[in-house]
Amino acid sequence: MNDFLSALAAIVGPKHLLTAATDTAPFALDWRRRYQGAPLAVAQPGSTAEVSELVKLCRAHQVAIVPQGGNTSTCGAATPDASGRQLIVALRRLNTVRHVDTDNNALTVEAGVTLQEAQQAAEAAGRLFPLALASQGTCQIGGNLSTNAGGVAVLRYGTMRELTLGLEAVLPDGRVLSQLQGLRKDTTGLDLKQLFIGAEGQLGLITAATLKLFPLPSAHATAMIGLADIETAIAWLNRLRDRFGDRLTAFEVMDAHCQQVLLRHHPGLMPFSAPWLALIELSDGGGAAELNDALANWLAEQDILDGVLAQNETERRKLWTLREEISESQRKDGPSIKHDIAVPTSALPRLVRDCSADLEAAFPGVRIVAFGHAGDGNLHYNVSYTRPGNADLFDDEDAVNAIVYDHVYRLGGTLAAEHGVGQLKKDWLVRYKDPLALELMRGIKRALDPDGLMNPGKWL
Amino acid sequence: MNDFLSALAAIVGPKHLLTAATDTAPFALDWRRRYQGAPLAVAQPGSTAEVSELVKLCRAHQVAIVPQGGNTSTCGAATPDASGRQLIVALRRLNTVRHVDTDNNALTVEAGVTLQEAQQAAEAAGRLFPLALASQGTCQIGGNLSTNAGGVAVLRYGTMRELTLGLEAVLPDGRVLSQLQGLRKDTTGLDLKQLFIGAEGQLGLITAATLKLFPLPSAHATAMIGLADIETAIAWLNRLRDRFGDRLTAFEVMDAHCQQVLLRHHPGLMPFSAPWLALIELSDGGGAAELNDALANWLAEQDILDGVLAQNETERRKLWTLREEISESQRKDGPSIKHDIAVPTSALPRLVRDCSADLEAAFPGVRIVAFGHAGDGNLHYNVSYTRPGNADLFDDEDAVNAIVYDHVYRLGGTLAAEHGVGQLKKDWLVRYKDPLALELMRGIKRALDPDGLMNPGKWL
Repeated sequence: MNDFLSALAAIVGPKHLLTAATDTAPFALDWRRRYQGAPLAVAQPGSTAEVSELVKLCRAHQVAIVPQGGNTSTCGAATPDASGRQLIVALRRLNTVRHVDTDNNALTVEAGVTLQEAQQAAEAAGRLFPLALASQGTCQIGGNLSTNAGGVAVLRYGTMRELTLGLEAVLPDGRVLSQLQGLRKDTTGLDLKQLFIGAEGQLGLITAATLKLFPLPSAHATAMIGLADIETAIAWLNRLRDRFGDRLTAFEVMDAHCQQVLLRHHPGLMPFSAPWLALIELSDGGGAAELNDALANWLAEQDILDGVLAQNETERRKLWTLREEISESQRKDGPSIKHDIAVPTSALPRLVRDCSADLEAAFPGVRIVAFGHAGDGNLHYNVSYTRPGNADLFDDEDAVNAIVYDHVYRLGGTLAAEHGVGQLKKDWLVRYKDPLALELMRGIKRALDPDGLMNPGKWL
Repeated sequence: MNDFLSALAAIVGPKHLLTAATDTAPFALDWRRRYQGAPLAVAQPGSTAEVSELVKLCRAHQVAIVPQGGNTSTCGAATPDASGRQLIVALRRLNTVRHVDTDNNALTVEAGVTLQEAQQAAEAAGRLFPLALASQGTCQIGGNLSTNAGGVAVLRYGTMRELTLGLEAVLPDGRVLSQLQGLRKDTTGLDLKQLFIGAEGQLGLITAATLKLFPLPSAHATAMIGLADIETAIAWLNRLRDRFGDRLTAFEVMDAHCQQVLLRHHPGLMPFSAPWLALIELSDGGGAAELNDALANWLAEQDILDGVLAQNETERRKLWTLREEISESQRKDGPSIKHDIAVPTSALPRLVRDCSADLEAAFPGVRIVAFGHAGDGNLHYNVSYTRPGNADLFDDEDAVNAIVYDHVYRLGGTLAAEHGVGQLKKDWLVRYKDPLALELMRGIKRALDPDGLMNPGKWL
């Protein structure tokens, strides 16, 4: 192993190879503190060429690689096992914005660029890179790609997969596949980038990407409305889309328990309460007053419980702060059994109704905090209380998950909408995912990574 | 072979198995009449279960399968070889619209449903399925998926790949992979549908798909403007997007030769001529007058050579007819060496200038007809005259292609933007595509179709 580490140090430079436990510790623990790994070392290559050399070296020594971006995975996807034999490859030094092609509405960045830095590079060119997540100051583009990240703007702009024009990736044999041209149409063969997006680093190491840019909106109109139930929310969503098309860039919902959590921690921010709240945002070119008037006029014609329209940027920020503070407020209230689920949007009402009823039957007084991206059929559905006297909420995790996921799959849904599978959900994946689909995925894994060295111990 | 055909007849029903040459003839010749195949037979299964049985039978007898939809491929992708040993599987009897989920904005159709029938099913539900092509009355959804079709609305809505939520496909071993749930977010593993989209039937047989629907626009505003050069067109495109965002649903350009062709065949339709023309369309919810005024006001502030804004649906149809009649008008003028190329939008001006100059140097007096989807960087770049006295224009096809594709690839482009590769471009693909990418594709082909029975003789 000393030979291996010396050769590795020669590739990335001695100061970019961390071996002392104190140095590797921040990389060895996942963001939610559920997985503690023990890596062989942490290598921080500074270029795609170094990544390529490193992968070839690992292959020669049969050392497994765990790629890591901003280490914000919520499912342990970037954390090594406890064997002390897996090498973390941290991509943070690949942090160059390589190219902004304004006329082509495309941005080429390396994997270690943070999401926020990518957003800023786009904005500096008068363009929008629309992916937006709570962790955007920390998470990196390589991680966003590897989990096919979602967030609050998917309704309008799609997930990371749909925002990607091309990739550069180091294959498990060390060769570099480069498809960064920024083409919007290309039917010359299979679309190989799709394999690496959402693969959680199990088929290769993404080193750079060319991403789609959009016009930078000059106007926003933001409102919060109260709704009697989730059915009404879906009806509103479709009426808003009929009227405003893709100017509707966000439609976020939160249930009554979610509002109580926010009231506890941000009492001054909540404008009102209702069985459900929806945060609505329109974006457009042209004037802000014009857009605000259009939304105000349309809202005036509707029959709503209660509503507030942001009159300026400060009020708009206040509404968005509510949305962004949900997770942190919940964390302050203690642990919760989290679900990142999606069903067809049309099935959301049934999911909410039937699943809550079954949870209540199994755990009388259960507390469910539900919020998320109704337009994508995606709810964060978190159970924060099951019964008195259970020392550890997570003692009930399996029972709660089985109820929730049974409902989700009965309705054609998924147990990992935008956060990935990683270590946290790999057993659940085997239980619920079509075995034929899993078999095909494993066949592709064998074809690309026959030695199984890319992020082993995850779901593939 | 008689055993095989008897067993096949038992699966699909005798009247749906065509073996006489007169019956199979329409399936054996491609749309552009460049490839004449000689199939063993034409099987027309009536359900996914029949397709599954058929594929298992073919595997047992090692009979190769050529899937065929509306037989409108421009590159021979759905035509068998001349061996008399390949079975055409025509999907036209899988023509059921299985499900319209209005609240989920999703439509599930079988592979043999024509594009126009899919559009109509969406419209009947008050929704838009936006893929739009010249052949939409004939081409089928399975073919649209297998070539990752593009068309005139990609700028706003994306290609067929981006319009697809899920697939049902029969694998080369006859098993059925079904992912028709209509989820907008799903990070449970690799996105297997991506493998089959654009694969030209070489990895399996698509039998159904769940497609994205959009609000049905209630307003259109359509204009044609004259532009001094292609650089100006790109600048206009970006200014229009800045102002109108995704209400800009089409931005189609045509060069001077293209206009001459149209003038010859549709003299009454051409409003005016200019070095380049751009056909612009905005779509929106809300009122038509409002949208027309917005475009008119904006155009009035711009500096343009010449322009016309459609004042009613008749005028709008006239402008679109011009666009739609280009191919047919060109066909009446005789053969042409066609190119379906794309480069980054920012590189279009250089492509047009440099490539035309090199063609002119090689073939003085060369006639190039260029038109297409500027917003996607995609031009149909057709050479209809090279030199006096060449009995067959296609004698110069290789020389012309080499000049065009050299320029395209120097600019990071592709030789098959939206029409696929098929038989026509498979040698060119090997010449220009990254060998590593081709090697990966072939590895995936081996993993999924080890016997090589799915549409052999194409590019994989």
